[in-house]
Amino acid sequence: MSERIPVGILGATGMVGQEFVNFLRDHPWFDITWLGASDRSAGKTYREATSWRLGGVMPPNVREIVVSDSKPNGAAPRLMFSAMDASVATEIERAFAAAGHVIVSNSRNHRMDADVPLLVPEINADHLRLIPEQQRARGWKGQIVTNPNCSTVVLVMALAPLKQFGIRRVIVTTMQAISGAGYPGVASMDINANVIPFIGSEEEKMECETQKILGDFVEARVEPLTAKVSAQCNRVPVVDGHTMAVSIELDQKPTEAEILGAMRGWRGIPQLKGLPSAPPCPVIYMEEQDRPQPRRDVERENGMAVFVGRLRKCPVLDYKFVALGHNTVRGAAGAAVLNAELMKAEGWI
Amino acid sequence: MSERIPVGILGATGMVGQEFVNFLRDHPWFDITWLGASDRSAGKTYREATSWRLGGVMPPNVREIVVSDSKPNGAAPRLMFSAMDASVATEIERAFAAAGHVIVSNSRNHRMDADVPLLVPEINADHLRLIPEQQRARGWKGQIVTNPNCSTVVLVMALAPLKQFGIRRVIVTTMQAISGAGYPGVASMDINANVIPFIGSEEEKMECETQKILGDFVEARVEPLTAKVSAQCNRVPVVDGHTMAVSIELDQKPTEAEILGAMRGWRGIPQLKGLPSAPPCPVIYMEEQDRPQPRRDVERENGMAVFVGRLRKCPVLDYKFVALGHNTVRGAAGAAVLNAELMKAEGWI
Amino acid sequence: MSERIPVGILGATGMVGQEFVNFLRDHPWFDITWLGASDRSAGKTYREATSWRLGGVMPPNVREIVVSDSKPNGAAPRLMFSAMDASVATEIERAFAAAGHVIVSNSRNHRMDADVPLLVPEINADHLRLIPEQQRARGWKGQIVTNPNCSTVVLVMALAPLKQFGIRRVIVTTMQAISGAGYPGVASMDINANVIPFIGSEEEKMECETQKILGDFVEARVEPLTAKVSAQCNRVPVVDGHTMAVSIELDQKPTEAEILGAMRGWRGIPQLKGLPSAPPCPVIYMEEQDRPQPRRDVERENGMAVFVGRLRKCPVLDYKFVALGHNTVRGAAGAAVLNAELMKAEGWI
Amino acid sequence: MSERIPVGILGATGMVGQEFVNFLRDHPWFDITWLGASDRSAGKTYREATSWRLGGVMPPNVREIVVSDSKPNGAAPRLMFSAMDASVATEIERAFAAAGHVIVSNSRNHRMDADVPLLVPEINADHLRLIPEQQRARGWKGQIVTNPNCSTVVLVMALAPLKQFGIRRVIVTTMQAISGAGYPGVASMDINANVIPFIGSEEEKMECETQKILGDFVEARVEPLTAKVSAQCNRVPVVDGHTMAVSIELDQKPTEAEILGAMRGWRGIPQLKGLPSAPPCPVIYMEEQDRPQPRRDVERENGMAVFVGRLRKCPVLDYKFVALGHNTVRGAAGAAVLNAELMKAEGWI
Repeated sequence: MSERIPVGILGATGMVGQEFVNFLRDHPWFDITWLGASDRSAGKTYREATSWRLGGVMPPNVREIVVSDSKPNGAAPRLMFSAMDASVATEIERAFAAAGHVIVSNSRNHRMDADVPLLVPEINADHLRLIPEQQRARGWKGQIVTNPNCSTVVLVMALAPLKQFGIRRVIVTTMQAISGAGYPGVASMDINANVIPFIGSEEEKMECETQKILGDFVEARVEPLTAKVSAQCNRVPVVDGHTMAVSIELDQKPTEAEILGAMRGWRGIPQLKGLPSAPPCPVIYMEEQDRPQPRRDVERENGMAVFVGRLRKCPVLDYKFVALGHNTVRGAAGAAVLNAELMKAEGWI
Repeated sequence: MSERIPVGILGATGMVGQEFVNFLRDHPWFDITWLGASDRSAGKTYREATSWRLGGVMPPNVREIVVSDSKPNGAAPRLMFSAMDASVATEIERAFAAAGHVIVSNSRNHRMDADVPLLVPEINADHLRLIPEQQRARGWKGQIVTNPNCSTVVLVMALAPLKQFGIRRVIVTTMQAISGAGYPGVASMDINANVIPFIGSEEEKMECETQKILGDFVEARVEPLTAKVSAQCNRVPVVDGHTMAVSIELDQKPTEAEILGAMRGWRGIPQLKGLPSAPPCPVIYMEEQDRPQPRRDVERENGMAVFVGRLRKCPVLDYKFVALGHNTVRGAAGAAVLNAELMKAEGWI
Repeated sequence: MSERIPVGILGATGMVGQEFVNFLRDHPWFDITWLGASDRSAGKTYREATSWRLGGVMPPNVREIVVSDSKPNGAAPRLMFSAMDASVATEIERAFAAAGHVIVSNSRNHRMDADVPLLVPEINADHLRLIPEQQRARGWKGQIVTNPNCSTVVLVMALAPLKQFGIRRVIVTTMQAISGAGYPGVASMDINANVIPFIGSEEEKMECETQKILGDFVEARVEPLTAKVSAQCNRVPVVDGHTMAVSIELDQKPTEAEILGAMRGWRGIPQLKGLPSAPPCPVIYMEEQDRPQPRRDVERENGMAVFVGRLRKCPVLDYKFVALGHNTVRGAAGAAVLNAELMKAEGWI
Repeated sequence: MSERIPVGILGATGMVGQEFVNFLRDHPWFDITWLGASDRSAGKTYREATSWRLGGVMPPNVREIVVSDSKPNGAAPRLMFSAMDASVATEIERAFAAAGHVIVSNSRNHRMDADVPLLVPEINADHLRLIPEQQRARGWKGQIVTNPNCSTVVLVMALAPLKQFGIRRVIVTTMQAISGAGYPGVASMDINANVIPFIGSEEEKMECETQKILGDFVEARVEPLTAKVSAQCNRVPVVDGHTMAVSIELDQKPTEAEILGAMRGWRGIPQLKGLPSAPPCPVIYMEEQDRPQPRRDVERENGMAVFVGRLRKCPVLDYKFVALGHNTVRGAAGAAVLNAELMKAEGWI
């Protein structure tokens, strides 16, 4: 990559925006040159406009950038990451896409639109082929590409290597980290030494996004996977990392060894092309009987791999196992950045 | 009950023993008159022999009881609760049963023995009819009766009202409290802000104990329920209360209203006889969308009820819901005390 | 008490209001007959207007009370507890006091007013003698009486028995529970597995309230204690209970035995008169080397006693010790109720 | 450094030993070539002998090293780090020192010996001059050098820049992380959502070690600082990082600006010589009103700096502030490694 690529972040002052800033800190291709937020923040430096909530301190390279309002007035770079809250994302993302920007969005708003790729680069890079239809139908010069919900991505990364065996039914129970709810997010009075067995709309997202992501691109549209998926989502007092217990039924009844081999050997385009944020092995199987664990494993591989363990027979479906992924990295900022890297490498940007 | 009944506790100095002491604090029928422990503690007062680990301070009524060794030398009362660690329980429980004692045990050792009742008074009071065969086959004047593992009991209490609909398949994922592991139990370095996706032998216990408890007493033995059960057990940083996400398949395809009616209307012998430790409603269904929660609900009903919430359709099996119970009360000391109350009321003691 | 006394709660739907509702659940003297809140809640039943945040479920006796707006229109009972947020308390409390109500307030707004008692019934019941002057100066038929900040009360309860020895200097570092910040209060992203070494205005409150509470009523006003007090306040991931490490310098250089005797023997008017919410011993000294601890001790004595432990020589001042109290009971609702009980018993209501 | 230096670790399989292995993972000078443990582990590979408790997985470079018993039989390198438990450290460390090894120990056993340096390289590098006397008096060819207790080092790093102003009195209350107690260490039943206001011997260590470390090397011995120090030590549910609230009295009554200048400008030999593990600024003052915080700040600067915040007037002594440091890095493995780097750079190895 001979030339550095300027990027902007919409919703830059919020917690997801901060995660983008953090993840892009030393990115080999992308330079943050533009930060957008609400009118209240516009005109201030990022340092003034932002209460830094992540560990450590705000990276020096963004502190003095003057925050813009969220309108496509020509000053923003072509490639834009969207970290906006869902309550405001729809219109703003569309306005930028219409104005020719490539919107790589973490918001949920357009994920299930039939003409918007819900992209996990290792799994469904071919879904990017929805873009021409999206541009045609909407009359946009730009485009919107999305990444999944932070719990969905962990599940689909663990399932994707098994797609070859015919995924028929999936039951998953999540134990999700508090960082998944943003800031201020979950009140400590609700979660300290507690479990909250409910996360609004999360189960529905996991169930339908999984089918779309694992679906096939057929004749200009995505045919969802027909597997049935049932999710139960819980919040637990963990800082980062969504852990999940998964049971699956597979058409072809592979052996444990075949499943392990499929998981360990699984590589996608990000690995083949050596994209900068791609983990060398997207799924890492751990042999220890009590792993993966969020506090001990979530930071490994820069938070971009999914960890699986405890594969064993399920008395009800075929197999059960545990999966873990970093919800604010692989489930948010890192996912979007890898999407942008793929789009660049594949010539979509 | 005109006369108070003396009771003893085997393994009285350990954490489960302390829970028995605590639960029996003001019991209307039972008086603790005897406390047994290892030779190391024998001869000391309970106060001297015990590091009190529960909230508050040791109840005054037991402080000056001199701890006995764990041999049936005639000094112990007939009714004995066993809070012993599984590593030592087998031989000691058998020796006391042989010597004529009624052993109401929380240990796992004899639970799956074909001639030992694995008792949940609301569910399978008729399993007590195993006792004559137990006494005959083993040549005992006394007897051993057990209660389930602390996670099993929560599941079976939630399932029992649904047995009438034909339970075919159950998938359960638990989020279990640290108190379930005793003291010192789980290291804080392992569980602080973490999830441990493994609890040794717990899944096997949940799977087989559930079948036995929900089984039918037929011709002097228990015919296990034929339903398939699959458990995934996790430790979470919660003090008391095992929460679980359950999916079930039922033969008769009841409506949601029928399931709710069955749970809410469910009563057993403890309720009919008004046993002192029986909760008025053994299963309490909560309407709030984010309940039950361990920290907020586990202490209700003296820890003796099981709380259920979030009943809804499961895209894979038929229904899914959340259940919660108090692992050291309904899952240990309270379970055993209710067993003893049932046995007294039914004339087995 | 032959006749039950109707009471109202201002700010009833908030978390402190809920704590009042909870604490008054089975009160032998007081009946909740009136609940006030913002205009947004007025006209709804308490059940409709309130998200119940405490353990268990809303007490049945208040569920169907229709919430009133916060204006003194004659419908409210004479005795009113104020659980209002400080941002709105000043004007509303004054309006009710002017209209003849006895306002027993947990809000900080009037605590440091020279003519308002900052009352801890065991310590400074004579400060109630400020009321006639308050009524005269402000032209009120009613009155306002306050209780201290939730961390101050723990400190002053531990210090009060030592006042006889001449308190010269106090250094205190607190480790405060999350419930002290209300709801939603502290974000879990801020406090999970963390310490926040700052609580806004808390140190100033502890320093000046302590001097007022331990001051003497002299010639119609309170002469603050001249002791110097320095506080460092921290938030820790504990649900209920403020723990504090205290170092003190005393004029008269008592022995450890004299200090212990003073703490253990200390009784106030609430104990002498047997007020319903008074703990039999207001300060309980624990001998165990690692106590008191919030999770294990805070619920004892209905949350109304202060627990002290680890009294030992301080190499810098004279002595050091640890103190613990229940911040939402003795530090809020319970404190105000005990204030009202004292006022009733002493004829101020 | 042209040539790499082989090092060994005594007590390598324990949690502190693992921290040494972790900290030395990519050290520019030192290569781990020898790992010692108890006879039970000797002969196994490090991988076989060790349950890896830290985040992630065991570094590959040590996995296949065969663990030795802890006897100085000539196979161990000259430079040895000691991570042994205090219960066994005394004799083994002495045997190795007698045999000519340089023992850089994290154990408490020899810290307060008059002829053993209790070293913090930024503060008292000249205390290394105790070594010749140590070797002479004990007849050793080798030597023992120690680092402070994990809470002491945070305090002394914050105090050292103020020594110039004449430290007269120090009162400190700590809030210490669970990792300070090793593994299994603190039971989760003790610390979950709790504070334990007691850590065995910790207060005494902080009080006397501080005086020794800040003392002057005068005529072949260390003259302890005469300041009075009083510590109250508490365990809180934090994974890594000891936070402390400090009040100090200083002879020369500096201004706040002078104190800040002293802290920020403070540099020691490790900084001047650019030792590999030296933080560029050993004390980092944070302006934010609610910092430092353990979860957010402890990993910064590779865990080798001490963070200070909230400097303000103390109504009792002169100033108060908050300090934070990484207890297993700057308070253990990192401290010892920096000691060894200093000793190498200064020609003691």
